[in-house]
Amino acid sequence: MKTIRSYVAGGWAEGAGKAQTLVNPATEEPVAEVAAGPVDWGRVVAHARTRGGEALRALTFGERGQLVKALSKLIHAHRDELIALAIANGGNTRGDAKFDIDGAAGTLAAYGEVGINLGKVKFLVDGEAAQLTRSVRFVGQHIAVPRQGVAVHINAFNFPAWGMMEKAAVALLAGVPVITKPATSTALVAARMMELVVEAKILPEGALSFVAGGVGDLLSHLEGQDVLAFTGSSDTAQMLRGQKDVVAQSVRVNVEADSLNAAVLGRDLARDSEGYALFVADVLRDMTQKAGQKCTAIRRVLVPDDMVEAVREDLSERLGAVKIGDPAREEVGMGPVATKKQQEDVRAGIARLREEADSVFGGDGSVAEAIGVPKGKGFFVSPVLLQLRDGKTATRVHAHEVFGPVSTIIPYSGEAKDAVDLVARGGGGLVSSVYSDDRRFLGEMAFGLAPHHGRLFLGSSKLAGHAVGPGTVLPQLVHGGPGRAGGGEELGSLRGLAFYLQRTAIAGDKPILEALFGNKPDDAA
Amino acid sequence: MKTIRSYVAGGWAEGAGKAQTLVNPATEEPVAEVAAGPVDWGRVVAHARTRGGEALRALTFGERGQLVKALSKLIHAHRDELIALAIANGGNTRGDAKFDIDGAAGTLAAYGEVGINLGKVKFLVDGEAAQLTRSVRFVGQHIAVPRQGVAVHINAFNFPAWGMMEKAAVALLAGVPVITKPATSTALVAARMMELVVEAKILPEGALSFVAGGVGDLLSHLEGQDVLAFTGSSDTAQMLRGQKDVVAQSVRVNVEADSLNAAVLGRDLARDSEGYALFVADVLRDMTQKAGQKCTAIRRVLVPDDMVEAVREDLSERLGAVKIGDPAREEVGMGPVATKKQQEDVRAGIARLREEADSVFGGDGSVAEAIGVPKGKGFFVSPVLLQLRDGKTATRVHAHEVFGPVSTIIPYSGEAKDAVDLVARGGGGLVSSVYSDDRRFLGEMAFGLAPHHGRLFLGSSKLAGHAVGPGTVLPQLVHGGPGRAGGGEELGSLRGLAFYLQRTAIAGDKPILEALFGNKPDDAA
Repeated sequence: MKTIRSYVAGGWAEGAGKAQTLVNPATEEPVAEVAAGPVDWGRVVAHARTRGGEALRALTFGERGQLVKALSKLIHAHRDELIALAIANGGNTRGDAKFDIDGAAGTLAAYGEVGINLGKVKFLVDGEAAQLTRSVRFVGQHIAVPRQGVAVHINAFNFPAWGMMEKAAVALLAGVPVITKPATSTALVAARMMELVVEAKILPEGALSFVAGGVGDLLSHLEGQDVLAFTGSSDTAQMLRGQKDVVAQSVRVNVEADSLNAAVLGRDLARDSEGYALFVADVLRDMTQKAGQKCTAIRRVLVPDDMVEAVREDLSERLGAVKIGDPAREEVGMGPVATKKQQEDVRAGIARLREEADSVFGGDGSVAEAIGVPKGKGFFVSPVLLQLRDGKTATRVHAHEVFGPVSTIIPYSGEAKDAVDLVARGGGGLVSSVYSDDRRFLGEMAFGLAPHHGRLFLGSSKLAGHAVGPGTVLPQLVHGGPGRAGGGEELGSLRGLAFYLQRTAIAGDKPILEALFGNKPDDAA
Repeated sequence: MKTIRSYVAGGWAEGAGKAQTLVNPATEEPVAEVAAGPVDWGRVVAHARTRGGEALRALTFGERGQLVKALSKLIHAHRDELIALAIANGGNTRGDAKFDIDGAAGTLAAYGEVGINLGKVKFLVDGEAAQLTRSVRFVGQHIAVPRQGVAVHINAFNFPAWGMMEKAAVALLAGVPVITKPATSTALVAARMMELVVEAKILPEGALSFVAGGVGDLLSHLEGQDVLAFTGSSDTAQMLRGQKDVVAQSVRVNVEADSLNAAVLGRDLARDSEGYALFVADVLRDMTQKAGQKCTAIRRVLVPDDMVEAVREDLSERLGAVKIGDPAREEVGMGPVATKKQQEDVRAGIARLREEADSVFGGDGSVAEAIGVPKGKGFFVSPVLLQLRDGKTATRVHAHEVFGPVSTIIPYSGEAKDAVDLVARGGGGLVSSVYSDDRRFLGEMAFGLAPHHGRLFLGSSKLAGHAVGPGTVLPQLVHGGPGRAGGGEELGSLRGLAFYLQRTAIAGDKPILEALFGNKPDDAA
């Protein structure tokens, strides 16, 4: 059986502790072992910071863009192999696996292009020079340069490929070396990607380190030039963000955590409209894709009171057609959740929501028989559609994210202000979506929801067939959200680089600043 | 004697606790009492968030700009009165007081103009719309809208006017209500400004609250839409940033803390050059202005080995001419530090630095006689110029900020890379300055120092007489710095607004997005 090791300080490494066994969540058969992590974290960090950082900063943004683009090609060239691993270790259907792996390759490709377009520069110019006093000589210019630290990336179990590479793409392009840690339970895809990167020798030594197992006292070695980006649960986020050394050293932290993403149906959309069909398709996809284990998945479905019955019928009918079982089988539409622990959490979450909602599809989430799986095996949960009994007083649906194939219908008046109020009760989210052909309604919703979200999706009839749904994170748009969602921001094309760069205002004599930062910045650097 | 009270939830308030006495730091005579803070912090926060927030968000950026501009005029109209209070309670000379109060009015004026130029809009457009997939219909547009929370501002004792108003200017312009808390010891100026604001009825009810005394459990009422901005010591910053509720709610935090700002003299500047004179004048000003109590003051003075004697002579001569005493007297060039505690800390800091440096001016900081002050009274410290015994091995000078009229000469080789290495040992700073007419040297220094600073000042001979020194924070340029400096960022014209706004990516059908966010955003909002 394969053993997953760390790649740190220029070589594969493992510690003395006990190995953990990874299983296929559909069959519970072992698929790999994860060795204990390295011991000397000070050395790991120093190697990345010094060797990796110096090598990356010696390159221009354009040259780093080429590296990132090469990573994209590498992932794409091994697509089938990686898909097979995602199916075996992630409970992914082939479609789920493609979503993850193509997402990784696509984000790398997009950031490769961003870098190539930035070209032969080693720093970015931020805005125009500003005259600072009455004298025309005294001006200020903002620039942005790579931070001289490491980026520690702690990723979630649900997107081992995309999660690792979307963060790495931005950091590497910015010129900051990465120490990446996948969630252990689904680490097989990430580990194989790391092997490919090491074998292909695309990146300079130290630019990308990979941690299998725990992170030990890694965080205690971080300093003021380092950054920490985390995707996962609020509880872990709080623990990381509150770490003594992280706080004391002003380590920059970006968190992407829980989110009770909403989809709001406008009352103008007739049941036979394309906008309505888009809404149903998006909710269905978010409930079943990756068995609902997406941080962007729709958890709350706001439906005008008089349309609830229709939506419930249409979603239930579609959910009933989804086949559950071993995702290695072609006819299966939804696999298991990733771990036993996830299965237990999701089932408990369903029970909690049922205190204020009725289950209108899927009951308590139990699965009597999973296709192609021995009886009793696998971490399966049925899609469960709930409907709130009292939309005005319910609280759990706005506070508790059930990270599985579970959504709750929340009846509302059809008025934008009521929908905004209900969605806002979620306390901040990554993305919400609104479906309507009424521009006035879309506008009210967009401005009402914007303060509470990092991203919004406005679905309309003419958009059907042209858009990817709200659950897809795109490199051009920021990803993250306020409050419960962690208060972070990633991606968004050039915007995502800011986390890894230091913005500096430089004041001085106009001709000198023009010579340094003006026409030919690449010569000056 | 005047009693300073809180202005919260629409009225002046005080709690049941014991009042604290404020003194004139030159004479130690009482000047005011500060009443205990309010009790019901939940109500204080709710009032600001709801009444203040709704009122501010009902206005356009242009209208809020007018409010901020009106605040500037109000402060300016009461300039003489405020200067007198700063002299009486802050140990400020008239020049020190003007620096603080004109800084407040100037920053308000600058942000007023920023708002007025933004005009009749309720949201900001961030970048251009981006096509998201192969379809030309599906596009994304980033916008920024006011966060729907409160901004808690906790300010430092050294700039009661500027500190309060530079933060308030940006938050109010962004549409976010402010709860501001001055440092208690020098609260007189801030309290009077608050009275003026309340009397003038410029701001909507709830837009600006003022806390005298402690903040009680204020922070435990903060939520995901709220922000917390702090200026002060690293220790307090860590305590605030690590607060359970602040972490749990993903409250945005901005910190501006310690900084070992450096001034680097280039070896090309002859002793009779204007660039050299600018360097000496800037160091002298930063040592004595506000008795060295500026977060931007020069603490480390890097001088090429063969120029050390000249710099030491020139600075000592100038320092010797500075008269110390009651800052109410015109001939006095430097007043006391703000409190007994500060005096003790500064004296202890000097002793600590003397473990690795020789005192070349000012001895241990004791002042035998202060002009116009009864013997033994007042929190005076002499300017102290130190010189490192061994520039290569010293550590305290790079780690310990002495917040008073104290700077240390650090001899260096004259090579840019050596200077960069020494300055970087400070672990991140707010601002450093470089003095040279050699563009190559300035360029090497600028790019070398940029990752470690929020701001740099490049002084050159032709700039003499045209620039304000590195110690002056300007509204056009960002203020803050990585690592030890707290990792924050404020001001910088439009850049400063980002902390108070939520950036949201909105994806949808191109014609709909154009209608909502395109040509006439103010009509759509």
